[in-house]
Amino acid sequence: MPSSPDELRALVEARLDELELWPQLHGQAESVRYSLLAGGKRVRPVICLATAEAAGAAAETALPAACALELVHTFSLVHDDLPSLDADEERRGQPSTWKQYGEAVGVLAGDALLAEAFRLACSYDTPHVARELAQATLGMIGGQYLDVTGTAPDEATLHKLKTGCLFAASVGLGLSAAGVPEEEQAPWRVFGDELGLLFQIVDDILDGDGYVLSHGNDGARRLADEAAERARARLAEVGADTSVLRDIVDDLAVRTA
Amino acid sequence: MPSSPDELRALVEARLDELELWPQLHGQAESVRYSLLAGGKRVRPVICLATAEAAGAAAETALPAACALELVHTFSLVHDDLPSLDADEERRGQPSTWKQYGEAVGVLAGDALLAEAFRLACSYDTPHVARELAQATLGMIGGQYLDVTGTAPDEATLHKLKTGCLFAASVGLGLSAAGVPEEEQAPWRVFGDELGLLFQIVDDILDGDGYVLSHGNDGARRLADEAAERARARLAEVGADTSVLRDIVDDLAVRTA
Repeated sequence: MPSSPDELRALVEARLDELELWPQLHGQAESVRYSLLAGGKRVRPVICLATAEAAGAAAETALPAACALELVHTFSLVHDDLPSLDADEERRGQPSTWKQYGEAVGVLAGDALLAEAFRLACSYDTPHVARELAQATLGMIGGQYLDVTGTAPDEATLHKLKTGCLFAASVGLGLSAAGVPEEEQAPWRVFGDELGLLFQIVDDILDGDGYVLSHGNDGARRLADEAAERARARLAEVGADTSVLRDIVDDLAVRTA
Repeated sequence: MPSSPDELRALVEARLDELELWPQLHGQAESVRYSLLAGGKRVRPVICLATAEAAGAAAETALPAACALELVHTFSLVHDDLPSLDADEERRGQPSTWKQYGEAVGVLAGDALLAEAFRLACSYDTPHVARELAQATLGMIGGQYLDVTGTAPDEATLHKLKTGCLFAASVGLGLSAAGVPEEEQAPWRVFGDELGLLFQIVDDILDGDGYVLSHGNDGARRLADEAAERARARLAEVGADTSVLRDIVDDLAVRTA
């Protein structure tokens, strides 16, 4: 019986809560914890765990990879919030990290989150998890660059980098942690790409920007439904019980927050 | 015949020069290259390569690890130079990265350097290199935190973190890349610690701060000589041709820049 998304989320929360940060971080650990435990839907780690379970592994096997994904996601939020980037003073109803601890510690908090993510990703016997995480992180940073400099060739490229890379890696890291051979990964990976697109379009519908501005509300809704349909079709190609991942697609398609 | 420090430095420069950055970085790659190729003594990668050669491996084997160390070092400089940290507008006679490309791209350049460092470190078959690099990076960030918040318990702790961690890792990564078994690494690693201390004290003598303020010029000089002597003694315990590492100790002890 596979775990439900809520059960997987609880696993992630528990592991993040008890995460032992590297002792030499000294006082810097406080702002890292503040950023990491400020809430959040934990979408990426839940996808990672659900993928690993669908691929036949215990969710616990993929927990370090799942938490590493959440740390990279949090790193990106902490740096994006900085005064020189988006200058956001609030995040999830609380002062953003730099607002709470000052800008210098905010920069260092993002740095520490990224390094801790790689330490976690390196707890496996092979470097596959950490390698894919590094690639996804670089894509995300490239997307952020295109965004802050206004040099993105088009919206699809921008979102594929800023959001898509880490979503695709959420599926990819689940496969790596579960030891799925590379030659069997293709349909899973296309599923991950569709999931990232779905998440981004629904995000834009909720925020009234991005795809809504370019395609209108109904147009964006249609694109989201099509992405969800393609994601379900890819799942159907996988010879495994992917019912929980299908539930995640359904949830992402109709989410309201 | 082991390679001289100058030959090893040339290897590092050549590899850094031709380093293929992750294509999804897009335009962000320019500031990464700017930071990385602005000069520098390449002390850490040279120590890494010399360690690997002394341990019986080809220097080329350790080149990805050596370059990863230099990327982490450069990441730390790029973020330390930011207006919210040291606010340095110049680095090695050129505009610092944020001054050249703006603060947002400066933040992202540091992020990209760190992620690229881990991508390089993950090019080995095992995660040992990347794992030790992550630990050293976290120690360095912890030291930077103690520095910017003025909360270091003492100078030795501060420098052991800010400088020592990455120096020790320079030796450690050379051992990992060369496949030296853990049970044989102890004297090498103590050598790495002494080398980091030596570098820091001489740095302070050149800058007239740190150890010079606490111990006077002659006192600091004496501490440096003692650290160099201990480093040489540790090398003598290693059953290998460590003549190049001994040359590096001698060079670091008398360097004037």
